[in-house]
Amino acid sequence: MYIGIDLGGTNIKAGVVDEKGNILHKDSIPTHAERPAEEIVKDMAMLAIKVVKDAGFEMKDMKSVGIASPGTPDSENGVLVYANNLPFLNMPMRAVMQQYIDLPIYLDNDANCAGLAEAKVGAGKGKNDVVTITLGTGVGGGVVIDGKIYNGFNNAASEIGHMVIVVDGEQCTCGRKGCFECYASATGLVRQTKEAMDKAPDSIMHELAKEYGKVSAKTAFQAAKKGDKAGLEVVEQYIKYLGVGISNIINIFMPEMVCIGGGVCNEGDYLLNPLREFVKKNTYSRTKAQTEVTIAEMGNDAGIIGAAFLGM
Amino acid sequence: MYIGIDLGGTNIKAGVVDEKGNILHKDSIPTHAERPAEEIVKDMAMLAIKVVKDAGFEMKDMKSVGIASPGTPDSENGVLVYANNLPFLNMPMRAVMQQYIDLPIYLDNDANCAGLAEAKVGAGKGKNDVVTITLGTGVGGGVVIDGKIYNGFNNAASEIGHMVIVVDGEQCTCGRKGCFECYASATGLVRQTKEAMDKAPDSIMHELAKEYGKVSAKTAFQAAKKGDKAGLEVVEQYIKYLGVGISNIINIFMPEMVCIGGGVCNEGDYLLNPLREFVKKNTYSRTKAQTEVTIAEMGNDAGIIGAAFLGM
Repeated sequence: MYIGIDLGGTNIKAGVVDEKGNILHKDSIPTHAERPAEEIVKDMAMLAIKVVKDAGFEMKDMKSVGIASPGTPDSENGVLVYANNLPFLNMPMRAVMQQYIDLPIYLDNDANCAGLAEAKVGAGKGKNDVVTITLGTGVGGGVVIDGKIYNGFNNAASEIGHMVIVVDGEQCTCGRKGCFECYASATGLVRQTKEAMDKAPDSIMHELAKEYGKVSAKTAFQAAKKGDKAGLEVVEQYIKYLGVGISNIINIFMPEMVCIGGGVCNEGDYLLNPLREFVKKNTYSRTKAQTEVTIAEMGNDAGIIGAAFLGM
Repeated sequence: MYIGIDLGGTNIKAGVVDEKGNILHKDSIPTHAERPAEEIVKDMAMLAIKVVKDAGFEMKDMKSVGIASPGTPDSENGVLVYANNLPFLNMPMRAVMQQYIDLPIYLDNDANCAGLAEAKVGAGKGKNDVVTITLGTGVGGGVVIDGKIYNGFNNAASEIGHMVIVVDGEQCTCGRKGCFECYASATGLVRQTKEAMDKAPDSIMHELAKEYGKVSAKTAFQAAKKGDKAGLEVVEQYIKYLGVGISNIINIFMPEMVCIGGGVCNEGDYLLNPLREFVKKNTYSRTKAQTEVTIAEMGNDAGIIGAAFLGM
């Protein structure tokens, strides 16, 4: 059995995971990101020890600890080089955690871990080359090649969200303009929805936003399903941007599968069917074997499970 | 020693290559692409046998034959699935060639072979992860990961030229709009030069084009070096587009090196220095290790050498 820890800006989650990727027991505690990094890592270790005990096992039953972390980890040396919303800068996580836990400790990016979980036991189970794209506040990428996370020479690869698809387009938080993330993230969808609402005072999106208390990534989809013209246009435009980025990734990687995850995927076939149609027209493969585009299956546990798989 | 064959739309080239990537002897014949595919493959085999003999060796001194082919090869099965300018459709090249040559026969895409040559003995020598981008009529990509060509599950990967960087941009030959190839290829540069000339009747680009008989990929660079405003703007714009695509590739792959090849690279530092500056600002890596951007070294022999390395 393996321990998987998912370090987030809000919560730390840990679980005991078996060889098949089943979580036997899990638990979580608040991160309290304002604390010194050493305290956070100590709490991660304590939570790991607790879930093992609560699951009815001993630490000697565990083969390794995997950590899914935001930011840029140096997987080789077990150091968290940088994380956007956490007080970690060149933090030797492996060394600190080993003060509390005497097991091999592995570290990787959370989007990579989610991708690994998806490729091993999720939608991409049994496939060697799987790219997982998570559509949230930003757009994260997890690239699995030959069953292993592809990290690049400096552990900073697969920043799929920071691929420019619109030269001189929207300003991205990364400094570039027109990144895929600006258009395909939930944040980007909300922006596109608001822009459309400003131009369409009669759209039912205004009522929907009032009803739900805010404009969300669901607003345009809700309106589109009711036949609202402005809502339909937003959805169509969003799927086009998402499709452009996914088609780029397919033309570059030709993976067996692209999995998309994140809240917007709750739209299911309403999103997936036109997206697949767009991608089919926009990918370069002239051979018969086409990349499958599908919705990720692992949900909120992807981080814990992917982290556990780092040690397998 | 190894045989490398470079199949092109105009010429077939073959060479005897040693373990260090040196061509000991090479030769070429016209492809005559209008012929049946079987005849072309027979001629490729005859040329291979001839270069071995002319180099003073026997076939038993050779360990393998590698073929660099345009289009989409199925490397595993030795079949050329499709090639744009050649009469090859699901052509079993390995099987046909083995009627004439009793050696292991390997097949891969020409851009991939060029990338492999660059990574093994060219600008990227000694590096594991190298992406080579060839700027010609189109834009070709060769991705080497862990010292091996990355091909995707269907042998159609690394179509870097067909990554959209301008949504709804210029029409590409592949069917998409706004592909990297439309802006960063020599063809794209010529188009941008012509557009600028139309808007600037006083530009010295008109004189240069008259002098050299046509508008070429050199025209804007020649004008820019003489301080011509319109020429400078074309060069600046071209470098921006090229930089956007290269930065995308770096954010996705984080290779140790990106090599660029093709005629426009003869501009040397005049191209490379501003390009590197652009890329540095547009890549996501927050760690200190940055991808090196440089000019490919292998030139016209890249195909032969890369093909030979398929068997090493």
